[in-house]
Amino acid sequence: MQLLERRIREDGEVLPGGILKVDGFLNHQMDPELLMEMAREFHRLFAGDKVNKILTIEASGIGPACFAGLAFGCPVLFAKKNRTRNLSGEFWTAEVHSFTHGVTNTIMVSKKYLGSGDRVLIIDDFLANGAALNGLITLCLEAGAEVAGAGICIEKAFQPGGELIRSRGVRVESLARIESMSDDGGIAFCR
Amino acid sequence: MQLLERRIREDGEVLPGGILKVDGFLNHQMDPELLMEMAREFHRLFAGDKVNKILTIEASGIGPACFAGLAFGCPVLFAKKNRTRNLSGEFWTAEVHSFTHGVTNTIMVSKKYLGSGDRVLIIDDFLANGAALNGLITLCLEAGAEVAGAGICIEKAFQPGGELIRSRGVRVESLARIESMSDDGGIAFCR
Repeated sequence: MQLLERRIREDGEVLPGGILKVDGFLNHQMDPELLMEMAREFHRLFAGDKVNKILTIEASGIGPACFAGLAFGCPVLFAKKNRTRNLSGEFWTAEVHSFTHGVTNTIMVSKKYLGSGDRVLIIDDFLANGAALNGLITLCLEAGAEVAGAGICIEKAFQPGGELIRSRGVRVESLARIESMSDDGGIAFCR
Repeated sequence: MQLLERRIREDGEVLPGGILKVDGFLNHQMDPELLMEMAREFHRLFAGDKVNKILTIEASGIGPACFAGLAFGCPVLFAKKNRTRNLSGEFWTAEVHSFTHGVTNTIMVSKKYLGSGDRVLIIDDFLANGAALNGLITLCLEAGAEVAGAGICIEKAFQPGGELIRSRGVRVESLARIESMSDDGGIAFCR
């Protein structure tokens, strides 16, 4: 998606260790117009796929997922990373190792809101190692829900997540796919 | 706001200890149409207030804030609760005690995205003890930003947060104000 690639080039920041900071428009400060355009693109890509629910994971997936919910006209469910007192009842759970934070979290969604009648589009801001997305797919399968696919804002195609998820037979559509980043700040997109 | 009050009556669940669960449409699963209507109401209430930035706190404030960003046509910034490796640089910080989780968090926003040129509308899903909102106001004042006000989805008017924040001279607009909840599930709204 040209609009997103241009924004990444203009406002993204490459840090040593393969880190791309896009906190000016995607995952700390968010640009609603850009996110709405991205949501329309997800809708175009998955039109006719009978998606009836958007699923994401807190915190930085929530923004892109909300706009997707508006574009698809369906509810948005976000998985929580820790059990809170206010979330009583029964949950679907999966273990997710975060490479960013170096910890393993239990992610959970209420069984009330995900079940066998659902056809789910998973939305997330980044796909790198694929741990979060893999966990979300596991939640869906546990719940008996169908996974229509995954809509990703930015895929780091030089990391193994995309291959891992596609090899599970899940359709992944990424709006920007990064082939490589150089230490001088250069970004090459997949063509 | 009648639409929200009706939804709370229909789909909200009162638990012992003054807990109101609205995780079917507001803070676990979200209804985009309802949240967009709420955002339009915030925009109506703060029209002419020269708001140029929406500020909220992860995770459950992000949804309502994103729709507000769309209604106001301005960026949405969310405070993070823990320092992550990907957030390098300098931050405005404040301490917030969470009564729900029984812990004190440092909340933080990048100095790059909040400063003296900003006129901020703070959005959050709940106002109860006011700790989170108080911390967000402190962040804004530290940053030299002006606080146009706070837009709250649901205020528990029987808890001290609303009084605390209004006594700081900050305008608070809550779309639903709960006067009392009874153990048999009854909810009375302020009139």
